[in-house]
Amino acid sequence: MKIAILPGDGIGPEIVEQAVRVLNALDEKFEMETAPVGGAGYEAHGHPLPEGTLKLAKEADAVLFGSVGDWKYDTLERPLRPEQAILGLRKNLNLFANLRPAILYPELAGASTLKPEVVSGLDILIIRELTGDIYFGQPRGVRTAPDGAFKGEREGFDTMRYAETEIRRIAHVAFQAARKRGKRLTSVDKANVLETFQFWKDIVTDVHKDYPDVALDHMYVDNAAMQLVRAPKKFDVIVTGNMFGDILSDAAAMLTGSIGMLPSASLDAHNKGLYEPSHGSAPDIAGKGIANPLATILSAAMMLRYSLNKAEQADRIEAAVKRVLAQGLRTPDIYEEGTTKVGTREMGDAVVRALA
Amino acid sequence: MKIAILPGDGIGPEIVEQAVRVLNALDEKFEMETAPVGGAGYEAHGHPLPEGTLKLAKEADAVLFGSVGDWKYDTLERPLRPEQAILGLRKNLNLFANLRPAILYPELAGASTLKPEVVSGLDILIIRELTGDIYFGQPRGVRTAPDGAFKGEREGFDTMRYAETEIRRIAHVAFQAARKRGKRLTSVDKANVLETFQFWKDIVTDVHKDYPDVALDHMYVDNAAMQLVRAPKKFDVIVTGNMFGDILSDAAAMLTGSIGMLPSASLDAHNKGLYEPSHGSAPDIAGKGIANPLATILSAAMMLRYSLNKAEQADRIEAAVKRVLAQGLRTPDIYEEGTTKVGTREMGDAVVRALA
Ligand SMILES: CC(C)[C@H](C(=O)O)[C@@H](O)C(=O)O
Ligand SMILES: CC(C)[C@H](C(=O)O)[C@@H](O)C(=O)O
Repeated sequence: MKIAILPGDGIGPEIVEQAVRVLNALDEKFEMETAPVGGAGYEAHGHPLPEGTLKLAKEADAVLFGSVGDWKYDTLERPLRPEQAILGLRKNLNLFANLRPAILYPELAGASTLKPEVVSGLDILIIRELTGDIYFGQPRGVRTAPDGAFKGEREGFDTMRYAETEIRRIAHVAFQAARKRGKRLTSVDKANVLETFQFWKDIVTDVHKDYPDVALDHMYVDNAAMQLVRAPKKFDVIVTGNMFGDILSDAAAMLTGSIGMLPSASLDAHNKGLYEPSHGSAPDIAGKGIANPLATILSAAMMLRYSLNKAEQADRIEAAVKRVLAQGLRTPDIYEEGTTKVGTREMGDAVVRALA
Repeated sequence: MKIAILPGDGIGPEIVEQAVRVLNALDEKFEMETAPVGGAGYEAHGHPLPEGTLKLAKEADAVLFGSVGDWKYDTLERPLRPEQAILGLRKNLNLFANLRPAILYPELAGASTLKPEVVSGLDILIIRELTGDIYFGQPRGVRTAPDGAFKGEREGFDTMRYAETEIRRIAHVAFQAARKRGKRLTSVDKANVLETFQFWKDIVTDVHKDYPDVALDHMYVDNAAMQLVRAPKKFDVIVTGNMFGDILSDAAAMLTGSIGMLPSASLDAHNKGLYEPSHGSAPDIAGKGIANPLATILSAAMMLRYSLNKAEQADRIEAAVKRVLAQGLRTPDIYEEGTTKVGTREMGDAVVRALA
């Protein structure tokens, strides 16, 4: 089985290196091939998602992705900016289902900005649709307004759209995930304002008929943002569109106070997937050897579980991560008094040791 | 000067009644006329925004609004649902600037789900554009997909659009508000994905030239949702579009833990405005006499300040509210041990007394 390794920019290469070491420390051996992406792709081949990188990602069984982006690319025209690589990979590989767990590890409860009683034991799963919505909807652009109160003026515009199949397939993923957990699914929409999300709500309600054992409720996105702050533990699984999911999954991750710990999986219809940490490329700390590699290591575990069918190896990695936390090892982002501060490589070393 | 009083549904009538009592207790006398809106409008005239109600709102100098919505109207077709009233008022009265303060009263610091050190002294102002964006953009609906991967299938769709004038005028409101406060403005966009918000960012950057004394920064909406949870006190004024503002202003309000305290103003270009509490109609507690009237009373104060040019009277009301909090009076939503629990009317009584 072949894994495409796309380290990307900023702290990406450092944290991916540790995840690769962890993978190499398993009994099972995997073929791995590395290619540049994001700013690194632009530097090497003049494009954030070079042809060879896309080809590798397509033929591999899974993709391990670091992170992309750096301020120095801010002035490039949009199609050349690093984040186009991640959008291009999602679209080209049909990775429509983004799974983002927001879990608070008991050892890191203090890292949250929320009161311990509000977040301790937090374990929610956000399922974000990833290839549709206003992210990709055509038409879009800047034009002369064709109608309306500002007709004739310059305007920016985008199109939100969701077809029935797109909603059905992500709803199935969500109901199935809920079935394996607390059997409660919250579908987040804005059906009171948007036609797209009234349609979304109707289809999700229809798909629910196949999952009578799962409790479904519908919540407006503004209320969901409030409830995540007020009582996040009331959620089990949340499913929503690409745009709302972008906002809510980041808010949920931040509730834990340790976004450096949170992995993510982006899957197609056949469990092929791209795995990446939930955090960004953090160019401010790149190259300093202090970035937290655990989100990427846990992303590698998700990859073993979902795409490579090696659940036992995934369990081993997750247990090893718990062990190093219990040993008190912390990168600076999750450091607290009374624990031991370590760098990126030392943290990787510790996980490799804990695997044994 | 004439005030249109639109109590609406749920707890709306109870809380508006107290705000009217407070207004009547001022030296200054105002002409007030009441009309039904939302579900109440539908019951009385078959429409959430009856013609007479809209006419009254248009001819008045300001509108004091309670809240609309109740589960019992959920099955009505969209144009008849209560929330169409508030969308219709915003659009018809050109109320493009929504000001939503998120303030944590020192007496209520314990009500927040966030740690005291993260939120104590919180005082941010969110300025949400209110008459454009995907809320009103045409075309929208459910149709057969005309193109794309799901061509020929049923799809829901909406159009996000912002014309130059719309962005310029809300940017001016935001820079002027920032100038009167901490002189820092954060413009929230999703310029890395949306054409509308790259255009937004460009125009806001251009308007900034008129306000060299205000520091402007740009932040992606997903990051803004995270930073509100991580370090909300770093913000001063936030300006954003209608959709993102809906989500972020509710999240920010919930950070305080006391959304029952937060007023809002929605203004047109001539300081005519609609004033309403930031919370909803809470049908579950309607008629029980326990709803918190303070957000509505503080909305009346904002009305005096922004639309009726009576800043002194506004100051008096705000001081009276602070006094009743200092006296330890609390409705159930903000009650804590050691304080005195009171109902809606008693809270109104207390504010009227404290005015003296
Ligand atoms: C970089 C950006 C295009 C991307 C998104 O908006 O999807 C990121 O925020 C994410 O959530 O992976
Ligand atoms: C009721 C709804 C249409 C409205 C909105 O989305 O604007 C509400 O959430 C608000 O923020 O006032």
